[in-house]
Amino acid sequence: MNIQKVENRVIQVNQFFLEKADQLLTPLLEEKQEPLQLVETTKNDDYIHGWKTETVGPIEALQDRSLGKGESVIIDFGDHLVGYVSMRIVPVGSPPDAPLHVKFTFGEMPVEVSEPFSEYNGWISSSWLQEEVLHVDVLPEELKLPRRYSFRYLRIDVLNTSPKYKVSFADIYCKTVTSANNEKVVQLSHPDEMMKKIDDVSIKTLQDCMQEVFEDGPKRDRRLWLGDLRLQALANYVTFQNNDLVKRCLYLFAAVPDEGGRISANLFMKPSIIADDTYLFDYSLFFTTTLFDYYIATNDKETLEDLWPSAYRQVELALQRLDERNIVQDDPSWWSFIDWHEELNKQAPSQAILIYTLKRAIKLAEILKSEQKDYLVDKLTEIERATIEYLWNEETGFFVSGEQKQISWATQVWMVLAEVLELTSSKQLLTRLMKENPAIGMNTPYMYHHYVEALLLVGEKEQAISSLKHYWGGMINDGADTFWELYNPNDKAYSPYGSHLINSYCHAWSCTPTYLIREFGL
Amino acid sequence: MNIQKVENRVIQVNQFFLEKADQLLTPLLEEKQEPLQLVETTKNDDYIHGWKTETVGPIEALQDRSLGKGESVIIDFGDHLVGYVSMRIVPVGSPPDAPLHVKFTFGEMPVEVSEPFSEYNGWISSSWLQEEVLHVDVLPEELKLPRRYSFRYLRIDVLNTSPKYKVSFADIYCKTVTSANNEKVVQLSHPDEMMKKIDDVSIKTLQDCMQEVFEDGPKRDRRLWLGDLRLQALANYVTFQNNDLVKRCLYLFAAVPDEGGRISANLFMKPSIIADDTYLFDYSLFFTTTLFDYYIATNDKETLEDLWPSAYRQVELALQRLDERNIVQDDPSWWSFIDWHEELNKQAPSQAILIYTLKRAIKLAEILKSEQKDYLVDKLTEIERATIEYLWNEETGFFVSGEQKQISWATQVWMVLAEVLELTSSKQLLTRLMKENPAIGMNTPYMYHHYVEALLLVGEKEQAISSLKHYWGGMINDGADTFWELYNPNDKAYSPYGSHLINSYCHAWSCTPTYLIREFGL
Repeated sequence: MNIQKVENRVIQVNQFFLEKADQLLTPLLEEKQEPLQLVETTKNDDYIHGWKTETVGPIEALQDRSLGKGESVIIDFGDHLVGYVSMRIVPVGSPPDAPLHVKFTFGEMPVEVSEPFSEYNGWISSSWLQEEVLHVDVLPEELKLPRRYSFRYLRIDVLNTSPKYKVSFADIYCKTVTSANNEKVVQLSHPDEMMKKIDDVSIKTLQDCMQEVFEDGPKRDRRLWLGDLRLQALANYVTFQNNDLVKRCLYLFAAVPDEGGRISANLFMKPSIIADDTYLFDYSLFFTTTLFDYYIATNDKETLEDLWPSAYRQVELALQRLDERNIVQDDPSWWSFIDWHEELNKQAPSQAILIYTLKRAIKLAEILKSEQKDYLVDKLTEIERATIEYLWNEETGFFVSGEQKQISWATQVWMVLAEVLELTSSKQLLTRLMKENPAIGMNTPYMYHHYVEALLLVGEKEQAISSLKHYWGGMINDGADTFWELYNPNDKAYSPYGSHLINSYCHAWSCTPTYLIREFGL
Repeated sequence: MNIQKVENRVIQVNQFFLEKADQLLTPLLEEKQEPLQLVETTKNDDYIHGWKTETVGPIEALQDRSLGKGESVIIDFGDHLVGYVSMRIVPVGSPPDAPLHVKFTFGEMPVEVSEPFSEYNGWISSSWLQEEVLHVDVLPEELKLPRRYSFRYLRIDVLNTSPKYKVSFADIYCKTVTSANNEKVVQLSHPDEMMKKIDDVSIKTLQDCMQEVFEDGPKRDRRLWLGDLRLQALANYVTFQNNDLVKRCLYLFAAVPDEGGRISANLFMKPSIIADDTYLFDYSLFFTTTLFDYYIATNDKETLEDLWPSAYRQVELALQRLDERNIVQDDPSWWSFIDWHEELNKQAPSQAILIYTLKRAIKLAEILKSEQKDYLVDKLTEIERATIEYLWNEETGFFVSGEQKQISWATQVWMVLAEVLELTSSKQLLTRLMKENPAIGMNTPYMYHHYVEALLLVGEKEQAISSLKHYWGGMINDGADTFWELYNPNDKAYSPYGSHLINSYCHAWSCTPTYLIREFGL
């Protein structure tokens, strides 16, 4: 895995944009959520990650249980939550003659409160694993854990008290936070119960990721990524309609480009707005397409005018990556994301994303009556021609990518979305794709979203619904309260990070079914 | 080990005493202490606990070191400190894309920052081991650790950052706290350098234990114990002279007796004043002797008048433990402390402590012209007679204790301090004790103090100095910055708790050499 690290870059801060973004920041909505029940998990390979959850008592039973050294309890809040946890810890027995040493473990999934984090051995930092080890010197204690957690299950392990006392836990609750207002969502009535459920879980997923920015995942990375933002914004327009949050995020990205005007793949919010030193070909272009989608949803021309130069600049920079044939240059480094897939070649899908973006940039240029339009139209023609000439393989009937002429699902899907072929040819391409099922498949809900959208674009509605139900419905059948960062129905422990413990189980890029269902009337 | 736990006791709170104690609480003195150097520890059996400390760089080198996953550093503050630690944590590399997961371990001794706490297996709660594991979400961070630590060494282990960044640590300091004002201490000039050093280290030990009350140890238990208070008060009168702190502690103890008027062995200060449910025969009596010492030091008759009923009540209660022979009843439970010694029988030393206390109670009754005096004098006569009759063994020339007629150091020492025999006989008893060296020896500086004091009482000044230098000087030669809770020159890893990791290395009851040196002109 390559981790991109750009040395010596200079960030050009646009103070005006930063201030605009700042003005759009509003207080989060808070709600108090109490836990549902006490559970236990047991090893059982019939369940996701091999852990079955069983109720062992109502939550009311908790305050009567006193826990001493080595004892633990798992509290089930009944649904996925993002927020701040408080509780009262009461000593039982003699006056506490030693501090309480206690561990709190938060899990979105049962596996996280069942398998010890000490066994985690993935390459992403273990510091994301949601646990806290505390000493409490004075009891009783009104404990307010200062960090925000993303979880359904809370496991409490009493590491030690003293031989003279134990502790009990009471009044546990979570103050949830979000910038998504439920009241704005029009309820969907759907004859198909699973479709209704998929819509609900999509919306919950989006809601829990909507904070001071659109986060990718409230558990991990808790950050504003362009690829996620684009999809979240689409889901938001048909649900919470917090369009100012999209606007805020667009201004944030535009506020901190590098010296060449290139927009970072993601931003950190604290201690101040920081552009990460990860730059991705596709993600930078999604700034342009997200602005396009935003304008379509809002007609907000002032924002379009402010941000058009940034959007246009991303296209210009992408065009600079074209070789003399007008094909995006391949690169061994991780310069375009597309999907989490070790073997996926990124050239052809990146070429498709460039075309996809150019078509939207041209429309924006038209709206703005920009003189840049003609240039873009010319480039699009050349690039589309080159794509057919160099990447289309007549013999196999697939687009190919990279030196090895790799045939992947991602390439075909994006070529369909980019509308490189006529509609009927695109339809045939997808049919062929399903039939021949090339080995380089799809690993993320992010990529599956694009696949389902491609099916809808070519009119394969039934197939789209069936895929949606198979994939997102599969997650629900496997116990999802919110949709996951990663799901491979054929390898349910799949993680690009080396452990399913670190996967995010509430992840922005998998919230799109509500968009697909509502926008396309599924 | 028996842990005393008294069920269903009723505490009789004396609000007037509590308020008096409260009024005597003054803000702690604070001082900023910066670290001295960076060190490493290596296994070496020539050093205490098997760990040798070596300088590896000046403290200035710290801020240039960046630490990633699995890296650590040991910071040496150069002396024992009690206080609150702050530092600045700065990210090095890319913007931090994962929280910092970091562990801080505080050690009074090198062993505590060298041997992993996970290997601790003693019976006292591991929650006393001074470590914190934190997640830091936003960097740079001005970290102020909220708990108070007692330490010289701070080990920092970076558990994880992310592959994209490391961290460095800067501006580390400790804000020390104490209620002991150095300016009040008259400097001792002493021709013997070791005696001077012993005096210095005693004073430092006392200082670090003087907080809002006299604590037994700032690392562990951080509590007001009567046995420690008595000795701290004596050392305080010849050094810091914070006599109001002694007064405050006496009022606190008197404020929360049980329904029978019995004073607890120790008090908790938080969340409010709580009498522990541990009651010890000797410790309760030390309320009376501590009041006596306080009056001698201060002539504060108002306090004496307030507290005399409580002091007298402890004597009454002790007298109730006498059997028909006028001998303190033996008991298999841990009802009298005397010393940390599994096999020590407590009967005879408790008898001696009762006599020791009676003699002082009689003097107080005299001062107060109390009608209780005659009763006390009569009881003393009976008890002294019974002691000689039943506990003195003419044949061996030793006092014996318990059914097994155990001959211990503790019994002889306390019988000398209680002045049960004539001075010459007491002197002979100690000489015999040293010569015959019975197997049940002394384990704590607390017991050694009484031994040295007994030597001084019988005029064995040279032997007292030599014992002082051998024992407390031995600790200094073994690296003590402050005197330890436990020291057995013949078994330097000795711990009654099952591990030297949990021992306290700055402990009130070992601060007495300054009292012995200054009071007896050693």
